[in-house]
Amino acid sequence: MAITIASLAEQLNGTILGNHSMVVLGAQSLEKAQPEEISFVADEKYLQTLAESSAGAVIAPGMLAETFADELPCDAVILVDDPQAAFLQSLEMLRPRRPRTRIGLSRGATISPTALIDAETNIHPGAHVGDDVIIGSRCDIHPGVVVGNGCRLGDDVILYPNVVLYPDVVIGNRVTIHASAVLGADGFGYRLIDDRRQKLPHFGIVRIEDDVEIGSCTTIDRAMIGETVIGEGTKLDNLVMIAHNCEIGKHNAFVGQVGLAGSVTSGDYVVCAGQVGIADHVHLGEGCTLGSKSGVHKDIPAGQVYMGAPAQPVAEALKTLMAQRKLPEMLRVVRRLEKQVRDLTDQVDRLSGSDNQPSEAAA
Amino acid sequence: MAITIASLAEQLNGTILGNHSMVVLGAQSLEKAQPEEISFVADEKYLQTLAESSAGAVIAPGMLAETFADELPCDAVILVDDPQAAFLQSLEMLRPRRPRTRIGLSRGATISPTALIDAETNIHPGAHVGDDVIIGSRCDIHPGVVVGNGCRLGDDVILYPNVVLYPDVVIGNRVTIHASAVLGADGFGYRLIDDRRQKLPHFGIVRIEDDVEIGSCTTIDRAMIGETVIGEGTKLDNLVMIAHNCEIGKHNAFVGQVGLAGSVTSGDYVVCAGQVGIADHVHLGEGCTLGSKSGVHKDIPAGQVYMGAPAQPVAEALKTLMAQRKLPEMLRVVRRLEKQVRDLTDQVDRLSGSDNQPSEAAA
Amino acid sequence: MAITIASLAEQLNGTILGNHSMVVLGAQSLEKAQPEEISFVADEKYLQTLAESSAGAVIAPGMLAETFADELPCDAVILVDDPQAAFLQSLEMLRPRRPRTRIGLSRGATISPTALIDAETNIHPGAHVGDDVIIGSRCDIHPGVVVGNGCRLGDDVILYPNVVLYPDVVIGNRVTIHASAVLGADGFGYRLIDDRRQKLPHFGIVRIEDDVEIGSCTTIDRAMIGETVIGEGTKLDNLVMIAHNCEIGKHNAFVGQVGLAGSVTSGDYVVCAGQVGIADHVHLGEGCTLGSKSGVHKDIPAGQVYMGAPAQPVAEALKTLMAQRKLPEMLRVVRRLEKQVRDLTDQVDRLSGSDNQPSEAAA
Repeated sequence: MAITIASLAEQLNGTILGNHSMVVLGAQSLEKAQPEEISFVADEKYLQTLAESSAGAVIAPGMLAETFADELPCDAVILVDDPQAAFLQSLEMLRPRRPRTRIGLSRGATISPTALIDAETNIHPGAHVGDDVIIGSRCDIHPGVVVGNGCRLGDDVILYPNVVLYPDVVIGNRVTIHASAVLGADGFGYRLIDDRRQKLPHFGIVRIEDDVEIGSCTTIDRAMIGETVIGEGTKLDNLVMIAHNCEIGKHNAFVGQVGLAGSVTSGDYVVCAGQVGIADHVHLGEGCTLGSKSGVHKDIPAGQVYMGAPAQPVAEALKTLMAQRKLPEMLRVVRRLEKQVRDLTDQVDRLSGSDNQPSEAAA
Repeated sequence: MAITIASLAEQLNGTILGNHSMVVLGAQSLEKAQPEEISFVADEKYLQTLAESSAGAVIAPGMLAETFADELPCDAVILVDDPQAAFLQSLEMLRPRRPRTRIGLSRGATISPTALIDAETNIHPGAHVGDDVIIGSRCDIHPGVVVGNGCRLGDDVILYPNVVLYPDVVIGNRVTIHASAVLGADGFGYRLIDDRRQKLPHFGIVRIEDDVEIGSCTTIDRAMIGETVIGEGTKLDNLVMIAHNCEIGKHNAFVGQVGLAGSVTSGDYVVCAGQVGIADHVHLGEGCTLGSKSGVHKDIPAGQVYMGAPAQPVAEALKTLMAQRKLPEMLRVVRRLEKQVRDLTDQVDRLSGSDNQPSEAAA
Repeated sequence: MAITIASLAEQLNGTILGNHSMVVLGAQSLEKAQPEEISFVADEKYLQTLAESSAGAVIAPGMLAETFADELPCDAVILVDDPQAAFLQSLEMLRPRRPRTRIGLSRGATISPTALIDAETNIHPGAHVGDDVIIGSRCDIHPGVVVGNGCRLGDDVILYPNVVLYPDVVIGNRVTIHASAVLGADGFGYRLIDDRRQKLPHFGIVRIEDDVEIGSCTTIDRAMIGETVIGEGTKLDNLVMIAHNCEIGKHNAFVGQVGLAGSVTSGDYVVCAGQVGIADHVHLGEGCTLGSKSGVHKDIPAGQVYMGAPAQPVAEALKTLMAQRKLPEMLRVVRRLEKQVRDLTDQVDRLSGSDNQPSEAAA
């Protein structure tokens, strides 16, 4: 794909500095861009990186116009309001994606005669669709996917290869689930009876609301009774574990390898960084953020940032960390103080003429 | 499904308080139950939740009979010995499961002619069964499952979709393995030779004893030589990692994202909470419990509870944690003590008339 | 398989002590070996285990010749330079692997007519190969594997069952990828626009260099732009998470459940123990080692060993740990010192006759 700076700037609604007729062949990060490629700077913090870049053209914020007045950093600059958004738009133009294949219901797929599937939806070869399943429009059900009996999917759902939906999972619209994720397996619940772990039945379901994205090899267990819910717009990264009966709010973001025990609930806009673990029945308040590797055993108040295991408010956690770093030195100070106080006590005892009588301080 | 309180109580062997002829349509948790549904209370701790519940009926322990003598909390109460067990029994009655499909050996499966498979077993379409495999009776081998050459499975084994068994894995009776779990891949063993990591061959197997349940996306590596073993009745949650040559005892329970390095052994009834990590060759003593996120580098004595990373006995770990929380304040105290001791030393020196001579305490 | 000590020693280029004509039927660890089996000792540390072993024969280092001069620990000893390597060689002889099946392009596979596949390569039934894919010689593409459009694989690549390669993934020669690993899914990148997380497009790829091995259920995300790279000879264990735009050096080893956030880079020969987490944009210097469960937020210098969360140089981390263990006792000492200093201050004040005037030390 090739495009001139003039036509690119027109589509980005931007202002050109420099060579209008330069031809751009690709888009890349500043560090890797070549002379025939365009890159972007978000703000003046990246000017040094830009100076060292081989990029032939760059998208920059309007506020840098004066900075570039005397000398351009490359052949052409396009000034816009939101450089990152404009760069992503350029990417879409310069690297057009493969068009969506029209497959319909592949003969290589195993589809129950009782499934109801919209004609615009693709069921790829090697996919399995169970009894009484309902699938909306423009969905892509890739090879190796298993959609269990009674599942219901909305429109524009993408199930990447080898995703498994156990029976009766409910998926909203515009949901993307990446390869090998598993939704709806039985939760981890047992009762110890006669010294053996007896399995607790899991009659509940998993419900995924609209605009959710779920990462590869992430697992979401079905509820014992009721529902395990992932709220609208929430994004889960890879290898995340959501146990039975969790109810996650809207627009949460959980990074890789986060693990939630059973019946955790969260408000909207909660963020968990990588490898966070949450104990069962905890509530994560709206808009709270948990630092990476946090271990959470108590409810987290709305809007707060917590870190550490066990998790503390970030200010306290940092104070504790700083203090820990000083611990070895502090130990030495305390040992010295002990000796000094002993010596002082002896001296004061002598001064008081009370050598034969143990002083209160020595108790 | 609809059932009267009278007939439900009869099957649960319970005593009715209130309306015998009330019709129950479903079973739910106290928080979510509707007027036509039944719920349960385990003990008096849940009386407040019961008071706020819309449940039309409730299963309760006999000891609450007096509490309900004056006023019933809902239309009908069934008193039993074990309310949770009775509630689960009600669930089974009110939400009967889909009957097991009889599929036999699907034409859509790939089955080696040398495999021996009991006639009562289902091999679903899209499953793969290798050479010399032996599979017992009443097993369900779901779509996308791969059973490698030489594997042996007992009776009543369920392999959910996309489970992979590498060659020569041995599975007992009544074993359930959830979707996308992988058993028998090579362990992570290399020798650095001429600055390159040379793979150590893995000739061993994986052996799963009776009544084991294994979660989704859990991985159990084969032994280098000998066996990696999961003992009878042990339950592994999702995304658990069991490395080569581990030998896990009976009736263990490992929660989500637990990771064991090579050659770990455990006694019976060991419990690991979520995200615990165990270093190689460690032994976990019978009946010990490890708190979530514990990091274990030394053998754990039988029956003990450990937590933290590195793991400590729980009493010590809690003492250390409490002390850590006081650290920043303690730092301030130590700084103040230093100043006070300096001042005292000066005063005592002056009192002793030894100003020209450095005192022992100041050394 | 049966082999005499004489013929085994000849192939291992070793020297025999004891019975040349003894017949060996298998190879096992010292703890488990039976009288008809051979085992090995790496050095004198294992002499006690050897004494308790039932092994009929043992491979030992030449330097132990004198130790065995008076009395052999078993029927036959083979002395060699590198006992572990010789033992592995014996294993290969005593337990020959199943020969690689010649399948070619199975009719049960779904293969795009535009894919170019070498005639020596096996595409198993139930595998899927997309458009414009190129696959080299002697590869094994197992059942349930999905090779997305435009992927390129070198020679001698093994993709175990249910591996998923998203489009345009590039794989070198002699690469082994274990079951259910996922390469090339979109990275976890969103912009919060109008209070909704808008997905950032991922146009980049994943590139795996020669001689890499990747564990089961490990996930490697594609770059936003550019490449996510796993360098030559690097080995990743199971359930490892590599986020978008990471560039991993050569001959690294990452143990189970390690997680890397976006744009992490590493030098050669880096080792991460189990459950380590690395924050985004961090650089791991050549030859550094990170202890299990480390949490890394800053660049790690080359050649250093770090541990803890947040990670510290190992010497400092151990000092901090030791000090933490002494914390509860130290707290008690500090409380006692406070009291002693208060008492001393009172005494000194009295001695100075300044009782009516608050002293400097009490401030």
